[in-house]
Amino acid sequence: MEVTRKNYKDCLNTVYSAIEEADFLAIDGEFSGISDGPNASALTNGLDTPEERYTKLKKHSMDFLLFQFGLCTFKYDQTKSKYITKTFNFYIFPKPFNRTSPDIKFICQSSSIDFLASQGFDFNKVFCHGIPYLNQEEEAQLREQTEERRNQHANGVGTPSYISPSSSKGPAHIPEEHKDFINRVVEKVEALFANSEKTLDLEPCTGFQRKLIYQTLNWKFPKGLHVETIETEKKERYIQISKVDEEERKRREQQKLEKEQEELNDAVGFSRVIHAISKSGKLVVGHNMLLDVMHTIHQFYCPLPELLHFVMVFSFLFPLRLLDTKLMASTQPFKELITYTSLAELEKQLKESPFKPPQVETAEGFLSYNTAQEQLHEAGYDAYITGLCFISMANYLGSFLTPPKAYISARSKLIEPFFNKDHVLYVTFPKEWKTSDLYQLFSAFGKT
Amino acid sequence: MEVTRKNYKDCLNTVYSAIEEADFLAIDGEFSGISDGPNASALTNGLDTPEERYTKLKKHSMDFLLFQFGLCTFKYDQTKSKYITKTFNFYIFPKPFNRTSPDIKFICQSSSIDFLASQGFDFNKVFCHGIPYLNQEEEAQLREQTEERRNQHANGVGTPSYISPSSSKGPAHIPEEHKDFINRVVEKVEALFANSEKTLDLEPCTGFQRKLIYQTLNWKFPKGLHVETIETEKKERYIQISKVDEEERKRREQQKLEKEQEELNDAVGFSRVIHAISKSGKLVVGHNMLLDVMHTIHQFYCPLPELLHFVMVFSFLFPLRLLDTKLMASTQPFKELITYTSLAELEKQLKESPFKPPQVETAEGFLSYNTAQEQLHEAGYDAYITGLCFISMANYLGSFLTPPKAYISARSKLIEPFFNKDHVLYVTFPKEWKTSDLYQLFSAFGKT
Repeated sequence: MEVTRKNYKDCLNTVYSAIEEADFLAIDGEFSGISDGPNASALTNGLDTPEERYTKLKKHSMDFLLFQFGLCTFKYDQTKSKYITKTFNFYIFPKPFNRTSPDIKFICQSSSIDFLASQGFDFNKVFCHGIPYLNQEEEAQLREQTEERRNQHANGVGTPSYISPSSSKGPAHIPEEHKDFINRVVEKVEALFANSEKTLDLEPCTGFQRKLIYQTLNWKFPKGLHVETIETEKKERYIQISKVDEEERKRREQQKLEKEQEELNDAVGFSRVIHAISKSGKLVVGHNMLLDVMHTIHQFYCPLPELLHFVMVFSFLFPLRLLDTKLMASTQPFKELITYTSLAELEKQLKESPFKPPQVETAEGFLSYNTAQEQLHEAGYDAYITGLCFISMANYLGSFLTPPKAYISARSKLIEPFFNKDHVLYVTFPKEWKTSDLYQLFSAFGKT
Repeated sequence: MEVTRKNYKDCLNTVYSAIEEADFLAIDGEFSGISDGPNASALTNGLDTPEERYTKLKKHSMDFLLFQFGLCTFKYDQTKSKYITKTFNFYIFPKPFNRTSPDIKFICQSSSIDFLASQGFDFNKVFCHGIPYLNQEEEAQLREQTEERRNQHANGVGTPSYISPSSSKGPAHIPEEHKDFINRVVEKVEALFANSEKTLDLEPCTGFQRKLIYQTLNWKFPKGLHVETIETEKKERYIQISKVDEEERKRREQQKLEKEQEELNDAVGFSRVIHAISKSGKLVVGHNMLLDVMHTIHQFYCPLPELLHFVMVFSFLFPLRLLDTKLMASTQPFKELITYTSLAELEKQLKESPFKPPQVETAEGFLSYNTAQEQLHEAGYDAYITGLCFISMANYLGSFLTPPKAYISARSKLIEPFFNKDHVLYVTFPKEWKTSDLYQLFSAFGKT
């Protein structure tokens, strides 16, 4: 399922329930580039220590944009002895929320863009219809601002949100050249009170003129009016004045708060999907997933911390289980059987003996992929075949049991040795540490 | 006319002749962003000195990409008393020429991208089908490499370009694990000599294996073979071996050189259009054009120098005339008549008295624009209406003549006071300097 800003809100519940019902999730990201320094192969040099790898990626990869996020959910159907899959292909873009919100800059690397273009990537879906997002700090700031306005209003402190803060200071000082304009507005409002119309739309005017109108009307007509700035599709702003009684005024204020709340949720946007994945505690499978995980944290949670803190933030966000299929394929008993560990090659090898092609079926209403017609480098497809690789390898482990089992669940103890729980970087915490230690450390970090 | 990588070569002669026949040209650029530092309005603060403005733009704007270039040519038709216009809308993208060419990184600014998206900008045309380009240094390097290979071959020094430089050093050292593979290739080539086939396609193999094949075949079969690496659409590389006599070998070598030359011209790509504009010496009109000119020089000529050198590079590239319609509209006698100088506002005001709407007609085979249905922020359209603004203002100057003239040519002396020849930054050289001084200085700069 393709998900953009257009259908995002309608899809959200479908996404949530797919995550909720799944046995495991597979993810993949596409980026606007890989490295703004050393070339990509030097950046992921196999000889680096995990610390070096993390530090290099943090320095040279985080200014690119994760602009397509693939999520494939796998739910095992006992009666069919098959996994039922739901694939989502999200397009992501940091569309500024309003004129004061951060104006994100990101780098594009021509070779990466050219490569995606050659694979049929649709850039218009990203740049014209990408789903916005906020990291946790941006979200907190926005919620705080909204909350403050509400409290001020509820306590009668300050002014209602639709009236400028300086509105109650008495008659506004109106510069000579605007006096005619403001007098005409006042005449129109007096006419509004005298006639049977309910609302009056003024002509579009400048921000300064709007401020003068707010100040003047609030002073001249302290009751019985609702004044609001409305933006047209052409981004022109005009003032709408309505005659209202107290009840109507409250109703409108309530409406406005609800609208604000909805806009806030819209602004958090795609981050809500990531929060749902994180909260689900489900096994998350990826292929060579360090960069995907780093971008996910950087873009939807917080700027990347130093390595030690990263491992903690990471454990906090994905408290249960994470598994890298490239790493799994390079580990016993697979290491001896698998020659190439690139995603496309791995998927091919895992269809052949001694492995068995995984039994999967696309859920109704979802687009199905055909692995014979490769759609590599579409994030949804890559997530899908990453999941297939995991299933084949997991089931292969069942052949060692007595009697052998053809299906091994994502919750099986057999899978656990392959988890990257505390060691997405192949770093393991001292065994004597407990999860509670991690949480304690993490919360200390959160305060600094 | 929309011009992308797909139709670029077919359009080039049309572009050249449109420039050649024109009375003046109008240009406009669209960028992936404006500022990676201060916000756009601070960057173009009217209070800055020209030096400050240039330095700020150089520091904060040049990492964005000029990705759409509008060119509108205006040719006056005496019999119709009308300008005939040809508009070109070029999509530009630094697609890497080959695997060793520079991998350009550029910044995108979300607010700019979002704004262009809201205007219906087609990002796929840029990223999937944009015309490549090279600056002068990159072009020179590429030409030098090609030239060197040719000379080596012509003088019998070194080896033909299709054989690896280390090929003539005697039998290659073949590592144990590749011996079987190479022996099989040699057997196949011996069979080729014995049978009636003309060519033999080997299986795709690694770069190292290809090197071993080149070395072995060159040593074992010094004559009668043409060996070439061919890349499939899937980017797999394989070796093709052909039986050839000396004449055929030379013909193939010649073909290869011609193909190289064509690829080189393709790589220079859009820069050739800029070279043609520069060489034409025609009046070039733009609206608020400093950023367009800076990006044009930076992207298609050379990294921007310090201010003094910039003025010289600039004079060198646009030796005749450059005119900024925003600047013209802010100068007497227009200053008193024109309230707003944004392009859209200016175009509207210049249709009304005391100005006259310009008489223009779209050349046959070109898409015509309707100024009533604004297509602002498409570079071709913006270039078109910039040209219209210039015509209206130029013709207005004719009303001061006795008797008044309704049409003032782009070559008229009346226009000259508005040229930005040496002062695109509103900087004027000391009057006693002559053009020859500039050229001398410039050529000195060119050597350092």
